[in-house]
Amino acid sequence: TIRHLFKQIFKASLELQQDDHKKTLLVSRKDHPQDTVVMVGDEPVGNHRKTVVAGPCSVESEEQVRKVAESMKRQGLRLLRGGAFKPRTSPYDFQGLGEEGLRILRRVADEFDLKVVSEIVNPADMELAVKYVDVIQIGARNMQNFELLKAAGSVRTPVFLKRGMSATVEELLFAAEYIVSRGNRQVILCERGIRTYEKWTRNTLDISAVPLLKQESHLPVFVDISHATGRRDILLPVAKAALAAGADGIMVEVHPEPAVALSDAHQQIDIPQFEKLISDLRESGLLSESQDPASVASSGK
Amino acid sequence: TIRHLFKQIFKASLELQQDDHKKTLLVSRKDHPQDTVVMVGDEPVGNHRKTVVAGPCSVESEEQVRKVAESMKRQGLRLLRGGAFKPRTSPYDFQGLGEEGLRILRRVADEFDLKVVSEIVNPADMELAVKYVDVIQIGARNMQNFELLKAAGSVRTPVFLKRGMSATVEELLFAAEYIVSRGNRQVILCERGIRTYEKWTRNTLDISAVPLLKQESHLPVFVDISHATGRRDILLPVAKAALAAGADGIMVEVHPEPAVALSDAHQQIDIPQFEKLISDLRESGLLSESQDPASVASSGK
Amino acid sequence: TIRHLFKQIFKASLELQQDDHKKTLLVSRKDHPQDTVVMVGDEPVGNHRKTVVAGPCSVESEEQVRKVAESMKRQGLRLLRGGAFKPRTSPYDFQGLGEEGLRILRRVADEFDLKVVSEIVNPADMELAVKYVDVIQIGARNMQNFELLKAAGSVRTPVFLKRGMSATVEELLFAAEYIVSRGNRQVILCERGIRTYEKWTRNTLDISAVPLLKQESHLPVFVDISHATGRRDILLPVAKAALAAGADGIMVEVHPEPAVALSDAHQQIDIPQFEKLISDLRESGLLSESQDPASVASSGK
Amino acid sequence: TIRHLFKQIFKASLELQQDDHKKTLLVSRKDHPQDTVVMVGDEPVGNHRKTVVAGPCSVESEEQVRKVAESMKRQGLRLLRGGAFKPRTSPYDFQGLGEEGLRILRRVADEFDLKVVSEIVNPADMELAVKYVDVIQIGARNMQNFELLKAAGSVRTPVFLKRGMSATVEELLFAAEYIVSRGNRQVILCERGIRTYEKWTRNTLDISAVPLLKQESHLPVFVDISHATGRRDILLPVAKAALAAGADGIMVEVHPEPAVALSDAHQQIDIPQFEKLISDLRESGLLSESQDPASVASSGK
Repeated sequence: TIRHLFKQIFKASLELQQDDHKKTLLVSRKDHPQDTVVMVGDEPVGNHRKTVVAGPCSVESEEQVRKVAESMKRQGLRLLRGGAFKPRTSPYDFQGLGEEGLRILRRVADEFDLKVVSEIVNPADMELAVKYVDVIQIGARNMQNFELLKAAGSVRTPVFLKRGMSATVEELLFAAEYIVSRGNRQVILCERGIRTYEKWTRNTLDISAVPLLKQESHLPVFVDISHATGRRDILLPVAKAALAAGADGIMVEVHPEPAVALSDAHQQIDIPQFEKLISDLRESGLLSESQDPASVASSGK
Repeated sequence: TIRHLFKQIFKASLELQQDDHKKTLLVSRKDHPQDTVVMVGDEPVGNHRKTVVAGPCSVESEEQVRKVAESMKRQGLRLLRGGAFKPRTSPYDFQGLGEEGLRILRRVADEFDLKVVSEIVNPADMELAVKYVDVIQIGARNMQNFELLKAAGSVRTPVFLKRGMSATVEELLFAAEYIVSRGNRQVILCERGIRTYEKWTRNTLDISAVPLLKQESHLPVFVDISHATGRRDILLPVAKAALAAGADGIMVEVHPEPAVALSDAHQQIDIPQFEKLISDLRESGLLSESQDPASVASSGK
Repeated sequence: TIRHLFKQIFKASLELQQDDHKKTLLVSRKDHPQDTVVMVGDEPVGNHRKTVVAGPCSVESEEQVRKVAESMKRQGLRLLRGGAFKPRTSPYDFQGLGEEGLRILRRVADEFDLKVVSEIVNPADMELAVKYVDVIQIGARNMQNFELLKAAGSVRTPVFLKRGMSATVEELLFAAEYIVSRGNRQVILCERGIRTYEKWTRNTLDISAVPLLKQESHLPVFVDISHATGRRDILLPVAKAALAAGADGIMVEVHPEPAVALSDAHQQIDIPQFEKLISDLRESGLLSESQDPASVASSGK
Repeated sequence: TIRHLFKQIFKASLELQQDDHKKTLLVSRKDHPQDTVVMVGDEPVGNHRKTVVAGPCSVESEEQVRKVAESMKRQGLRLLRGGAFKPRTSPYDFQGLGEEGLRILRRVADEFDLKVVSEIVNPADMELAVKYVDVIQIGARNMQNFELLKAAGSVRTPVFLKRGMSATVEELLFAAEYIVSRGNRQVILCERGIRTYEKWTRNTLDISAVPLLKQESHLPVFVDISHATGRRDILLPVAKAALAAGADGIMVEVHPEPAVALSDAHQQIDIPQFEKLISDLRESGLLSESQDPASVASSGK
């Protein structure tokens, strides 16, 4: 029948269009089938290496950061996160230490041979940022802050790009495309949960986004298990799920004393909980023994 | 300060209330810390045994069901699903074969020593159902069809209860409580994705629901990977995520020829895809070798 | 270019398909351009007459219902609602008075020459229902309880069908089609808010659904302002919005003493608040003076 | 009982906290009960004056903008919108004319004695912006771009702040507080629909947000009917709903030839449709005859 015929043409043209569309993106696997490995200094990220980014929500003091860094060093983890510029819902909440926070991170990271991941929120701060950080984080609230994406595209420091609070997977890929199309190909994607009506978690971790992103794009994919859940008691199973689904790494918020944290007090874990989490993950086989470049390279996928 | 004091009282009273509240539910772990093992005939489900429920979305013919059953038997899987009463968005879509569908399922299951899981949609059909099925499925659209829940509570056949399309985890537990409080303690909970604005999957699999349900309740928890994703290409990583997060099993739609299926044509997998999925899951160590009761018991958790 | 050509074919075929699709539905305006007026006894509903359905969430006692009925009579409102069978999240919440509730409603309605709107939740109760009620309500949780829809389609009593908690507008139309295709053309559609992440209201009233439903379908469209908001303080502006958007009527929960109500205590209004709401709406010109059939007919649209 | 007592304390402390909390916000009505009237040059906005902001999604040429401006002038509307800096999902979509776009808007607005509303997306452009525009628009994607909010707080040009794609009403108020707390009290709030699973509209207009915002805050509240719906055929009823719900104005996208628009082609209306919309709204009584300050003042609310 004519109806059926049109249906066929319709589908053919739809696929044609979609094919066409995906082909044009630099972040797509279409023209770039092999996995991108983002080099954070001498630390490779991606290609199914399993990497842990950890650290406090906000940088509060050098002592606080050092305690986390020591623990990371002990565990062979190298990517230290910490917020110096904090995007907060209320203007009356703690807004971060700013450049002083970056300075603390840099100092401590250098002391323990770690790499710094920290969020930048103003396009004008990009030059400042690259003096201190090894990875520029772009947070969920700024995923479609296109001026910030363009600024991140104009530097050569790796970018850790979080999915927006209600962004689709496709929009996350387009946001990454803003960065890559400006010349910075060192982008790590991060699923961190989306906003829904479910109340027992802070956000709803969209686990399917992990294989979808891996399939559509050659970029490394992480899961921020702290923001995805907003609670400590399910971090281990959620981390396992993320890694089992194919994530190249996880991000987790760690604070020496979560109860007195200036932000995200409810979801940060303390150092013993952190070490238990990592050791449980390693025991499960989903995380390799050490992230020392040499040993990771030999442990393979 | 007075403000701080009130904050403390507020929190204390809030916890008190919540404690109080959860304590009253029969589905809660509070008064029943050990895992419930649901016995589907001689087949135990739960307590970290990993079980696969598989079969066509709709029962279309005996030949169709038999092909899936043969494959299941070969793989040592025992829980055969198939829809006889189909809740469909449009009244003009295929509504299922009804009792004839149940008869086909029973016949084929008996032939291969399998157990039948099938959805019941009318409280009045409960008596009919228990003649044919080993597990009564209650679908997402009926999770708050309380008359159906009450009817399922009044029989002694195990119930497979799916989370509603936009139900919270708490509401799923209350729905289960309707069944258990009527005397039927044999309930399996199933996360199947919730409705969000993400368009690349049919639903958004709320993976955090798995550990939350395991933590709050003693009932077995499954994940329906077919409805959660609505696409074949990410079933394996999503199944891995579900099992790694602690699910006691997965449900997957299998059809000998998905292209001509009368429902859910896009998401069903064919038999070779199904066998590949199961063998990949077993290889990953997340699914045990065979679900033969003896071997499962020895493989442990 | 070929791409542009395909785009045109694509769009043409898409429209063709959609046209085709909508044409088949009995609830569509395609084959039935004129508005359906549902006759509730001698009370016409629809065709831009503005009708108010009011009454307590749950029927608790004859005295309670009578107080609301007296107020309605005084104001010239004729459609009395009240829940006898209550679908409640928890099995331990008040489940309604059942048939006794229907009896109370009937008795009081007859006393004041009102019509009864009440929810039915079990297909098996349909025959019982039609003895007592003038309009069968199908609640949000049952919008895709297809057995209930089929049962409602087999009687000749008007049906008040609420949109499901996360149903799309299209799914609501398909649900109505289940009823109409069984032969019962007397269906009133009701938007009651959908579930989102916004926390200051119980649900998010999808006001665009009102003109969309009016445009696509010939059936009357109502808005349940109580469930849509879950709070009393914005009922007036929301009711105005609903009527201004083209709704044929509103539903509102009224209880003589909301503070002691057995359900929905937070959102019900008391009788003075109810009378103020109606008089404010009439003053605004969005609600006609009286719903006495004669006077409404003369007041026009 | 002790439980009841705690419930009372709980509620009391909860209210106390909330009271306390709301009291601190400068955008709140608590300490500022009277409506803020934002002066856009000599054009007052707010306090239940009904204002229309109209113009093309993107500024494409002077001729395009002039056609809309002429129509506005004819209708007595004075707030001309147009996008010069366009936040677009894909980096390959038209990104706007930039400063040249602002220049066109200014020139045309001056010619017809109109005021310019245009989106600014980079904190660094704020000084540039105030040379050209009368109202700085902050778009949905930037509602939590706190650096941009801070920059907007540091100028004295009125700000038109749109609700984020999945922001709560509370978060919108906090975003406004960022601006007001920096010293710029001239803020207009705009509901523009939130992201849900409903597919027949681009977003879901949260009409309840209008009375909630009016109740909580003294700032003017608008509704962007174009983005809220994404379709032309329901603009009139949705505009009526917005105004009936208490909005101080609406924003609508108008393009001389929507079919060839470089952005939002589907939702913009052409000039005859625009003039019909305004005249229908005026006929309904929900929009006053002319927005000439003098005449508006006399028509009152």
